[in-house]
Amino acid sequence: MSAAAEATPNCKVVSANVVAKKLIAEVNDGLKGLGKAPLLVGFLSSADPAARTYADWTAKTFKDNGFAFELREIDRDLLEDAIIEANHDSNVGGIIVYYPIFGNRQDQYLQQIVDISKDVEGLSHRYLFNMYQNIRYLDGAEHKKSVLPCTPLAVIKILEHLQVYNTILPYGNRLHGHTITVINRSEVVGRPLAALLANDGANVYSVDINDVQQFTRGEGLRKKRHEVTELPGWTVADCLPKSDVVISGVPGDKFKVPLNYLREGAVCINFSSDKNFAPEVKQKASIYVPAIGKVTIVVLMRNLLRIIQNRQESETRPADAVEKSGTIEEAAPA
Amino acid sequence: MSAAAEATPNCKVVSANVVAKKLIAEVNDGLKGLGKAPLLVGFLSSADPAARTYADWTAKTFKDNGFAFELREIDRDLLEDAIIEANHDSNVGGIIVYYPIFGNRQDQYLQQIVDISKDVEGLSHRYLFNMYQNIRYLDGAEHKKSVLPCTPLAVIKILEHLQVYNTILPYGNRLHGHTITVINRSEVVGRPLAALLANDGANVYSVDINDVQQFTRGEGLRKKRHEVTELPGWTVADCLPKSDVVISGVPGDKFKVPLNYLREGAVCINFSSDKNFAPEVKQKASIYVPAIGKVTIVVLMRNLLRIIQNRQESETRPADAVEKSGTIEEAAPA
Repeated sequence: MSAAAEATPNCKVVSANVVAKKLIAEVNDGLKGLGKAPLLVGFLSSADPAARTYADWTAKTFKDNGFAFELREIDRDLLEDAIIEANHDSNVGGIIVYYPIFGNRQDQYLQQIVDISKDVEGLSHRYLFNMYQNIRYLDGAEHKKSVLPCTPLAVIKILEHLQVYNTILPYGNRLHGHTITVINRSEVVGRPLAALLANDGANVYSVDINDVQQFTRGEGLRKKRHEVTELPGWTVADCLPKSDVVISGVPGDKFKVPLNYLREGAVCINFSSDKNFAPEVKQKASIYVPAIGKVTIVVLMRNLLRIIQNRQESETRPADAVEKSGTIEEAAPA
Repeated sequence: MSAAAEATPNCKVVSANVVAKKLIAEVNDGLKGLGKAPLLVGFLSSADPAARTYADWTAKTFKDNGFAFELREIDRDLLEDAIIEANHDSNVGGIIVYYPIFGNRQDQYLQQIVDISKDVEGLSHRYLFNMYQNIRYLDGAEHKKSVLPCTPLAVIKILEHLQVYNTILPYGNRLHGHTITVINRSEVVGRPLAALLANDGANVYSVDINDVQQFTRGEGLRKKRHEVTELPGWTVADCLPKSDVVISGVPGDKFKVPLNYLREGAVCINFSSDKNFAPEVKQKASIYVPAIGKVTIVVLMRNLLRIIQNRQESETRPADAVEKSGTIEEAAPA
């Protein structure tokens, strides 16, 4: 065989655009069902350039697809009251807040100010609690699906497109048999993502700068939801050889996934705004997704439709409806 | 006048013990009203020595005063489920979790797992929201008082004992006319304390390492709740000469309040485990409180009685009762 013939590796590079387009088609069907285009209100209260870029992307994607988007730039000291006003405003379909604002724990307080019935980001405690506890509906009748956080959900939508999710298996177990390494354990993306993947049946290694944790529902997926086990002394080098999927989202340009440990034919997804995988990843990976941002924005539209539908299916006021059964009951051991 | 006569400054040093004893008497009266001693369950999931010390203090003070306390040492990865179990256990009167556990945002997630009806620390979002919004009751009938976070409430109880709160004035306005500097703006103590003092009528300068903010209900206390204004370029040196009360809680032994800016006759309170005031504070201050820890523990007992009373006054299950009207309605503009 000639060197030239050998030179081209068989790695399929999948652009987020392809997945985004497919999801947009679904979203447009959902949009048809509504009388008028729902309004998403975005709050921008910091000079952070990444926040501004995210806001601009949202505006463009929403307008291109017949959704209404309004950016409100508010002094950070007036933001709490501005969010409360939007919570009450029946013209506001959904709310997104662009973080960081104070860049400290006050931001987590503000996250909980957005009413759960308008939270398109899925950051309300009730949504996060349901996600970690693997509770998929807000109501006993299972009409109202709990909202999932945008970026983790975007990664899952990509894994579905890549057929890592196996639809032969029952809903909820479709990652059974997969071992997935997630590099990053932030409360915004890495930890929720590891929990979601484990709740769907994967064996997940969650890697951060300090340590490695295993998220799993156990042998034969006997557990109702994932459990976490610390793996003292483990590093990413121990995880990669065991993983058929590697998902990395480390901020900054310093970190690169050590490709020498990567398994031949692995599926590699980068959700960092920087490139966590060197170009050589294509020499080994079967599939490589270099970025996910465009999918995340479509997931915002999807979540907006979800919360509007949840409100419509409720006979009481949205906030009451989602608060009706306290987290406590939902979490009651079966 | 002889040098000796001049040498003794007129500063009254008030020990937290004195305030704690007075509060314990109130608490004991409350305890008599109950059939049996309520059980506080403490969860310890980290090796942090400060957390252990706080747990030991709680155990001692509770047992000395006829309250039941049980410390549960739980692997941090099993803590979420252990808290949920305690939420359901009718034998558990209240729950306290000793932080830090993960030492990151996951700790804030865990804070919201404790059911609001058992949260003696007052860290549930609903309680914090009510505090910042100056909503003092959980119910429209105003039978169920919203719980306040322990350390800020301990400082307020001390200010009441020191008669900085003026009972001639109506409840809710009793700090009108006072200017108070609070040094530290953490989400756990500094910011809630500044908000509480401003909601009670004080003009508050909130100082942290980066900047100074003013918390106030405005001239004549015309506003329903405090507003925050940033004071660019201000430092503690601008705040102290204007303040008749100075409350400082900077961790570590590096920071000292610059006494040269301190107003003659100021009331000085230290809530740091280190000493933020040099001994020379007694040369200028009228009252000096060197520590508050013992009051904080008594406030825990007080909060435990409060949540038990709130549960008893409710006809429905505790969690339902406090969740019945969503934060939204409570926050509705009057």
